[in-house]
Amino acid sequence: MRILVQKFGGSSVADLECMKKVRSKVLAAREEGYKLVVVLSARAGQTNSLLERAYQWSDEPDLAELDVLLTTGEQESVALFSMLLQDAGVKARSILGFQIPIITDDAFGSARIDSIDATRLRELLETYDVLVMAGFQGRTPDMRLTTLGRGGSDTSAVAIAAALGDDTRCDIYTDVDGVYTTDPRMCKAAHKLDRICYDEMLEMASMGAKVLQIRSVEIAEKYNVPVRVRSTFSNDPGTLVTKEDDMMESVLVSGIATDKDQARITLCDVQDRPGTAASIFNPLGEAGIVVDMIIQTASRNGVTDMAFTVSRKDLKRAIDVLTKAGNDASKIESSASIAKVSVVGVGMRNHSGVSGRVFDALYKAGINLIMISTSEVKISCLVDEADLELAVNVLHKEFDL
Amino acid sequence: MRILVQKFGGSSVADLECMKKVRSKVLAAREEGYKLVVVLSARAGQTNSLLERAYQWSDEPDLAELDVLLTTGEQESVALFSMLLQDAGVKARSILGFQIPIITDDAFGSARIDSIDATRLRELLETYDVLVMAGFQGRTPDMRLTTLGRGGSDTSAVAIAAALGDDTRCDIYTDVDGVYTTDPRMCKAAHKLDRICYDEMLEMASMGAKVLQIRSVEIAEKYNVPVRVRSTFSNDPGTLVTKEDDMMESVLVSGIATDKDQARITLCDVQDRPGTAASIFNPLGEAGIVVDMIIQTASRNGVTDMAFTVSRKDLKRAIDVLTKAGNDASKIESSASIAKVSVVGVGMRNHSGVSGRVFDALYKAGINLIMISTSEVKISCLVDEADLELAVNVLHKEFDL
Repeated sequence: MRILVQKFGGSSVADLECMKKVRSKVLAAREEGYKLVVVLSARAGQTNSLLERAYQWSDEPDLAELDVLLTTGEQESVALFSMLLQDAGVKARSILGFQIPIITDDAFGSARIDSIDATRLRELLETYDVLVMAGFQGRTPDMRLTTLGRGGSDTSAVAIAAALGDDTRCDIYTDVDGVYTTDPRMCKAAHKLDRICYDEMLEMASMGAKVLQIRSVEIAEKYNVPVRVRSTFSNDPGTLVTKEDDMMESVLVSGIATDKDQARITLCDVQDRPGTAASIFNPLGEAGIVVDMIIQTASRNGVTDMAFTVSRKDLKRAIDVLTKAGNDASKIESSASIAKVSVVGVGMRNHSGVSGRVFDALYKAGINLIMISTSEVKISCLVDEADLELAVNVLHKEFDL
Repeated sequence: MRILVQKFGGSSVADLECMKKVRSKVLAAREEGYKLVVVLSARAGQTNSLLERAYQWSDEPDLAELDVLLTTGEQESVALFSMLLQDAGVKARSILGFQIPIITDDAFGSARIDSIDATRLRELLETYDVLVMAGFQGRTPDMRLTTLGRGGSDTSAVAIAAALGDDTRCDIYTDVDGVYTTDPRMCKAAHKLDRICYDEMLEMASMGAKVLQIRSVEIAEKYNVPVRVRSTFSNDPGTLVTKEDDMMESVLVSGIATDKDQARITLCDVQDRPGTAASIFNPLGEAGIVVDMIIQTASRNGVTDMAFTVSRKDLKRAIDVLTKAGNDASKIESSASIAKVSVVGVGMRNHSGVSGRVFDALYKAGINLIMISTSEVKISCLVDEADLELAVNVLHKEFDL
């Protein structure tokens, strides 16, 4: 039995016309001889409208009850889509998270999958050609409904493919036709990648290339699930997200990611002694504020500048937290007109000199680097927001993408 | 632990304002020291709008998938109402049919309850003050969702009270403040009954006094559940539906029920021989047409007239079925301008002469009786629809209601 998992998001199941497009994708795959698990989200806008209602009913709705409410969205999608398939003569039925079952922890609203038993699913696939599965949802061991957090349907889809095993492929349908070398709105030379490996995809996704939920890529990597990102509205084969192979390593850089959701805070002239960093970052952590890049300048006369970046929406709150916590900075500076550009590629692991080429190319283009951070497969530079587009184009050209 | 089951219908949970009224009823009962199971329907109109959608998706939606779709209605109600209770500081949570669990057969769309294990419910009531339970739904032994058919929330509520045992009372909240001696729109003298026994209620309900689902009364009788029918919009104690007691038997007649949904069909001059009735009624039964009253006139020269009533909506189809099946009638007559008036009371069991008083009172008022049928606790007369209101008033007065 060859099984394929297909996942369609909210805009793909928004109404009857959209669902008919989805049906034709499903029928085409069945023609190829696949048995299918089709994972659906709630129709576009429904989750938000249910949330709105909940906040009319209570200022602080209980997270467990919120999950009972929100799971109705996917339940509606799968029931309707199953009817549509049956109407075309397909042996299909819906299956909800609790029926599979997908067992999660009890972190309502952002539950993590503990286990999936695919035995029942495989049994049902003997009888049915298509199982229409509600994404985004699971249940606790004691039968309470849970949701996996925003975008959780990607995670459901990849996790089901992993549970089915046998290299079951997972096709994630979205409104773009794959993963691009960089944002086409910024760089005309941007083009679609045929393949990208998990580590690269993780860096691209976390950088704001919002094609795939990060958690789903982590699961795909862990269980080695081949994931294809493709469009509901074309027949393009899309981009295959897969494990690294030799061919990939010969490519130095796969893509340029950008992230405008950056704000910088600088604490000037803080004491350069043990405990200073903790006294700054612990209160931020407790307030749930994620700090991204951190730079400490060289110490002069026992004092130093401590600079770091946070999400723009957290900027004001971060400064409040720092002010309340108290510190010995002479002043706190901040800026929200900055952006991050990152060069991503697994080839970097085995090749030195990539960072030199990045800095050199940006320098020649007259772009000032505010901060730099690197990982095994990524080099990120913080630049002035006004320089972002130029930086992307310069780097795209430098690495012949 | 004193437990009370309360059931609120779709118009009681239609919006936030309505739900707040429901909450005050729940809080009042909690003040009295009860632990509560609150059974809710989907908000008014939602089941219909989901059904409409299903029929846009498929001309003949699969009944199992329809149940997956429809159960979202109650799921939404219980999640929102639980939030509202928690907002008032009440320890509450929702519970869905499959979580209890309510196990049903797999007659999707009109499933019958096979068993309810109240162990979990009792355990949860140690922790929670109010369990907000989704009415109308259950699951099959293999975890598929089912619904109990229209008005099934009454059945859910009474069945849960029965499963909890210990004479757990079930209050059914509706938009009338109890069961009346007859339809107040037809008879100004109509007044609310304080008590009525199950058998009487069954006759009243099946006669079109649509306060309580018949199935729920049957379950109440079987498990001896005291049911109170009362209004969401007043503090009236309503009508207690309970087992027969001595006091009740002293009352000859409890109420006058009416039913306008009647149409009569007469097959004239059919052969009066064994098998004639079967040849007429078997095809109707196979077509799902319910026949109510049947009368066969005395045989003349080996032929007889066979008259019976069906629901008005089935009239045309019944005549088609009869015509197709073939018969030896000289002609088929029909009329839809008839109605049924019934005198109901358990006191009849031990008192003769009631039927005489009925016929006499109607005769004196100049009302012609088209058909008559009787049961242990009921005398029904078919009259011209134009005579119905007069008949109700005459009988209401005759039995001093």
